[in-house]
Amino acid sequence: MFSIFPIKGNVTAPNGFYCDGVNVGMRKGNDGDVAFIRSDALCDISAVFTTNRFCAAPIVHFKNYPTGFQTNFLLINAKNANAMTGSKGVEDINTIFSKLNRTEVVNPVMSSTGVIGYRLNIDKIVSAFEMFDFDAKNHEKLARAIMTTDSFEKQLAFDVVMHDGSSFKIGAVCKGAGMINPAMATMLCFVTTDAAIPKSDMDELLHEAAGQSFNRISVDGDTSTNDTLMLMANKTSGAYNKEAFREALNTITFNLAMMILKDGEGATKLVSFEVKGAKSLEDAQKASMALSNSLLVKTALFGEDPNWGRIASTIGASGIECDEELLTIHYDDLLIYSHEFRELDKEREEKAYAIMKQESFKVVCDLGLGEYSYKSYGCDLSYDYVKINAEYRT
Amino acid sequence: MFSIFPIKGNVTAPNGFYCDGVNVGMRKGNDGDVAFIRSDALCDISAVFTTNRFCAAPIVHFKNYPTGFQTNFLLINAKNANAMTGSKGVEDINTIFSKLNRTEVVNPVMSSTGVIGYRLNIDKIVSAFEMFDFDAKNHEKLARAIMTTDSFEKQLAFDVVMHDGSSFKIGAVCKGAGMINPAMATMLCFVTTDAAIPKSDMDELLHEAAGQSFNRISVDGDTSTNDTLMLMANKTSGAYNKEAFREALNTITFNLAMMILKDGEGATKLVSFEVKGAKSLEDAQKASMALSNSLLVKTALFGEDPNWGRIASTIGASGIECDEELLTIHYDDLLIYSHEFRELDKEREEKAYAIMKQESFKVVCDLGLGEYSYKSYGCDLSYDYVKINAEYRT
Repeated sequence: MFSIFPIKGNVTAPNGFYCDGVNVGMRKGNDGDVAFIRSDALCDISAVFTTNRFCAAPIVHFKNYPTGFQTNFLLINAKNANAMTGSKGVEDINTIFSKLNRTEVVNPVMSSTGVIGYRLNIDKIVSAFEMFDFDAKNHEKLARAIMTTDSFEKQLAFDVVMHDGSSFKIGAVCKGAGMINPAMATMLCFVTTDAAIPKSDMDELLHEAAGQSFNRISVDGDTSTNDTLMLMANKTSGAYNKEAFREALNTITFNLAMMILKDGEGATKLVSFEVKGAKSLEDAQKASMALSNSLLVKTALFGEDPNWGRIASTIGASGIECDEELLTIHYDDLLIYSHEFRELDKEREEKAYAIMKQESFKVVCDLGLGEYSYKSYGCDLSYDYVKINAEYRT
Repeated sequence: MFSIFPIKGNVTAPNGFYCDGVNVGMRKGNDGDVAFIRSDALCDISAVFTTNRFCAAPIVHFKNYPTGFQTNFLLINAKNANAMTGSKGVEDINTIFSKLNRTEVVNPVMSSTGVIGYRLNIDKIVSAFEMFDFDAKNHEKLARAIMTTDSFEKQLAFDVVMHDGSSFKIGAVCKGAGMINPAMATMLCFVTTDAAIPKSDMDELLHEAAGQSFNRISVDGDTSTNDTLMLMANKTSGAYNKEAFREALNTITFNLAMMILKDGEGATKLVSFEVKGAKSLEDAQKASMALSNSLLVKTALFGEDPNWGRIASTIGASGIECDEELLTIHYDDLLIYSHEFRELDKEREEKAYAIMKQESFKVVCDLGLGEYSYKSYGCDLSYDYVKINAEYRT
């Protein structure tokens, strides 16, 4: 019914979007620290924000607009989260936009990442307005300007062609480096499209996409002050198909989430944790997320130690219904635990080592109790994780 | 009304208790791997066990005895948790005790720590029965035989003297090395006393003591397969006073819990996290435990980075009622965050660095919303944590 073709770029791949990134002196080096995304045509905008009670000023500023507001301008800065800055933080955003001096800009929004608790340097950020090329499509500069501890740019774009020949484009850029609890570090993802998608579908599909991607590499309710997933739609292609859009959006967000994990701070492996046979979806999700967040599991992954005991213990401690006589654990296709088969023989242990040496593999735990399953994704914990996070601010 | 005097030793300090530890070849080196604690007189016994659904065979074996059973013999082994071993694991314990051949032994119990998923080596453990000196009071050998990644013995004993001159003794030995989520590694603590304490007081005070100590360095419901806190009372002193016993037991368990933290795997600092001014005790506990378990907070402690943003973000993410305009954060007595005071000046930052350089300090977060408070205890996360846990089984 439709085909999805990967294309170059990110948010400027869809028609009528522009972006740039510049360095105003907040970040050392050549990469930018302030960026924008804008559209010629007014956009509907949907967002999924952090559930942190101390959500950052840009989120408060966004929510101050009336429901269903349209915009054509998004400003982004790195190095300062503008979080825990109170009402002054929101005032600062308004001051910044008052100096934008572009009459066509309607309801501008902002997104920030960086250190918590410092007021924005208004002068520096405003100086970007003199430096931006507002008609540029510098998607690489945007991708680099929003990075924190990321070691590579995270971007994707698709051309979606329907069977009647009509087509739309969707593109996205993302920042975030996977951690033990990835959402504790800021994750920002901006998606643009020229699809003629109704606002109600935007809200529905964006929440669905978050649930299938970024929420599977983090724990609900344990999110940073700034986490943001945004979708801007300028509708200029005139084309739309709900299933095609869902597929394209899910593919983009899932792959960007995996890029975050692969870029995990110090991470060397990407592992999926599927819990199936659970009595409820809640149980499956709880156990799966407990596994992808367990320090003991993560360090065992880094040590390439096929110690299924840590997997079992984590499931047992997750507070779900489970039974050691029914549980089975597989690493890829290798059975590594069942009630009649607990101790690994030499051959199976060798096979387990080989599986764990891979850059990515799957852990599948079947509880044998019901029909529900959930899959989450994690990375290992290495020395470098500690190093990166101990030295983050300095 | 009573005085508490520290005395030498651990579980054999109280009258009528004996212990020994021997090496049967499961552990490399000279330290023991099998130990016992026994009493001449029959003991009442109370225990607080892990809430892990996959609790280990020794716990199942213990619970198979009728409520209120008495015992005079406890066998302990290291290097093998006898967990996830199913009904065979319990049978193995019965087989081992069937070979003890000491007619005076009544209702023997067992406690194990080590790797999950392997059957006990019955012959090796039984060989300890030939090696034990059953009339010894080798408390140092016991303390070393139960260690895993512990770097020092954890033991305490007190002589408790009441105002009428009567007295009883209480002693304890403990193993466990504090981790991110300390209870995920096995914690074993055995307390003995010759106090004439009624069984109902034993149950009540042991649970209370767990709540004031080991539960404050771990997350409820996220415990290992083998966690055990046991109290054996042979009543032979004839002396007892409830308040005195409560005080002595709480002091012992709290100090042993702090020793676990100080011996944290790779830990260099011990930090208390008090959350006060909460709307409910549940809120205070949730936020406090979130802080002592947060990887970002722990790595910031290791990095000696006075980044209060991570503290605030963790509180905001913990799902409790809070308001950034009311929150204050202190490191020791230094105010480091309030709504009118967010950015640290040079002088205050220097003071904060000095506080964080200490081996221990306190973080106090006042939510300004109510009357409830909770204090938990954590350690920092260092490179060595990853090293120890990546290489644990090898």
